[in-house]
Amino acid sequence: MVAELHPVNGSAHAPRKPAAVGDPVDRIETPALLVDLATLERNIMRMAAGARATGVALRPHAKSHKSATIARMQVAAGAVGVCCQKVAEAEAMARGGIADIYVSNQVVAPQKLARLARVAAQARVMLAFDSAEGVDAAGCACRSAGTQIDALVELDLGDERAGVPAGDPTVVLARRIANTDGLHFAGLQAYKSTAQHSPTAAERKRLALEAASMVQSARMALANARLECRVVSGGGTGSWRYDAESRAYNEVQPGSYVFMDAYYSRISDESGGAFHEFENALFLLASVTSVPAASRALVDEHGRLRWPAGGMGLRIDERIWLVPGNCDPTVNLHDWLVGVRDGRVEQVWAVDARGPGF
Amino acid sequence: MVAELHPVNGSAHAPRKPAAVGDPVDRIETPALLVDLATLERNIMRMAAGARATGVALRPHAKSHKSATIARMQVAAGAVGVCCQKVAEAEAMARGGIADIYVSNQVVAPQKLARLARVAAQARVMLAFDSAEGVDAAGCACRSAGTQIDALVELDLGDERAGVPAGDPTVVLARRIANTDGLHFAGLQAYKSTAQHSPTAAERKRLALEAASMVQSARMALANARLECRVVSGGGTGSWRYDAESRAYNEVQPGSYVFMDAYYSRISDESGGAFHEFENALFLLASVTSVPAASRALVDEHGRLRWPAGGMGLRIDERIWLVPGNCDPTVNLHDWLVGVRDGRVEQVWAVDARGPGF
Repeated sequence: MVAELHPVNGSAHAPRKPAAVGDPVDRIETPALLVDLATLERNIMRMAAGARATGVALRPHAKSHKSATIARMQVAAGAVGVCCQKVAEAEAMARGGIADIYVSNQVVAPQKLARLARVAAQARVMLAFDSAEGVDAAGCACRSAGTQIDALVELDLGDERAGVPAGDPTVVLARRIANTDGLHFAGLQAYKSTAQHSPTAAERKRLALEAASMVQSARMALANARLECRVVSGGGTGSWRYDAESRAYNEVQPGSYVFMDAYYSRISDESGGAFHEFENALFLLASVTSVPAASRALVDEHGRLRWPAGGMGLRIDERIWLVPGNCDPTVNLHDWLVGVRDGRVEQVWAVDARGPGF
Repeated sequence: MVAELHPVNGSAHAPRKPAAVGDPVDRIETPALLVDLATLERNIMRMAAGARATGVALRPHAKSHKSATIARMQVAAGAVGVCCQKVAEAEAMARGGIADIYVSNQVVAPQKLARLARVAAQARVMLAFDSAEGVDAAGCACRSAGTQIDALVELDLGDERAGVPAGDPTVVLARRIANTDGLHFAGLQAYKSTAQHSPTAAERKRLALEAASMVQSARMALANARLECRVVSGGGTGSWRYDAESRAYNEVQPGSYVFMDAYYSRISDESGGAFHEFENALFLLASVTSVPAASRALVDEHGRLRWPAGGMGLRIDERIWLVPGNCDPTVNLHDWLVGVRDGRVEQVWAVDARGPGF
């Protein structure tokens, strides 16, 4: 009778799956994250084709899905590898067979760098840098592990994020990398965060081109210092086309395109209509637990819903598909992605890189 | 060399621990959630003493810590049991040996009710109701499992949450419960959410007493209908004292007191000073990964910090202790709670009930 109440035995419990392969969609336990597989596949193909057409390499950001399986689908469609934001994500991608992994973030702690240097024994690893301390610590970790990491200098594009200014500081840091055993200077990281979600296409383009001109000046400074800049990586779902067309980048790193979300639904395209280059593929399946009044309900993902008086009501235990506001943190709350097609569960994928990621 | 990169084998990976028992605090991997054990113990004892002094039973809400170990500490200090918000939390608490578990929320799906009815084979289980559909489904689940659930009617206290109005609808639903085999009518659930975080003590008290008078009228209606109301449960960290003193409740269910957070630090006590009945026991340990300018830094929990020009700076890889804004969702992002005392790791507890909780 209590067979499901297995003992905890000192480790975090193995999370239950909300569904099994072959289940009809209406048997999935809620709340669950559903992936519409046909839409996912279209998004993956469309982005790969777009990158090919504009002549840039595609390196999707895996923080949006945290799934090695989806990363493999992206690589199969033509991506050169993936971006990650944390060492734990990079480890999960390497375990899942991804051969080219870029941690597009600063990693400076010796313990974490030691782990990343070990990942470099089975995959090509790139890492972003904005400090001499980070360069020295990463070099040390690589020499200890007997591996090499490709190092990009991250540019400060004026958004109050990480990075060094595009002039002399870039050259100084690149030279320090070039002089550090265990590291190979590979190029530049340049992500213009404000260009992703600005509501109008014109504003996103303006911000992206402003960033591109800073990237171009950094490339020129490196060329004058005879430091070869093989990779220039940046861009996101909202700016990737402008980044690619600017010719300042040779690699784009969009993440959200794979699932899309309500946040991106609010931006517009060049005609002023909704941005519909990609489609919503991620849904939170929830059930109504309470209908305390004629125009509102509560669901089991702790949400409140309202509708206009006289509008369509909801019944107790009715299921609803919600579009997440922002796919990245939503995925990070879940242990499983339930892939559905034609009303049935076709896949149950682990969110391999979920968690705080120390 | 790649020994840590174990294969995924189809299930979600077992999360790594950020520290081991006995480690000095400065060896904990970041980001990690730290619990100051001495402060935790003081909070637990202080709340238990306060409930005893005011003559109400204490049933702490476990969604704040999601740890069966901390729940056992609360019970050892005098709590009658715990509250949960989801069936998965109730299962985790039952696995951890808690004998009296109240799901202070609506559960209406047959699959979930079947699981909760199984929990009732090893623990006393209470559940809140606000619909006839929920009552009928729960009765069916209990009859199938051969167990019994104690049922509370949830009151709508005007905050646009769940619940039924305090008059006739309460009596009608209580009577339906009393007439349902498998359920036992036990009393009322009444949680006044707006009374928890209102900035002044006077406003929290006013809202709590407004709710208490609705509770009293519901109790009277039930008494007139000869429906015995053995449990009246409600209250939270910000209102518990007013709830207890109102005599409308005989059980309080505060959760956040165990850890406290920045959200509760912003409210004031009756003298107008800071609310300091309980102390911050939960900290997010993070490391600085980038110091791109003289007055700002980035940390490995994806946070940005600023300080006034000329103020104390931060160094690359320096560790900082952050106070979470809201303890409940912060805990839900982590797999482990690292208990520290006198500069050493004394405990590493699993967040037993983390996750979407279907």
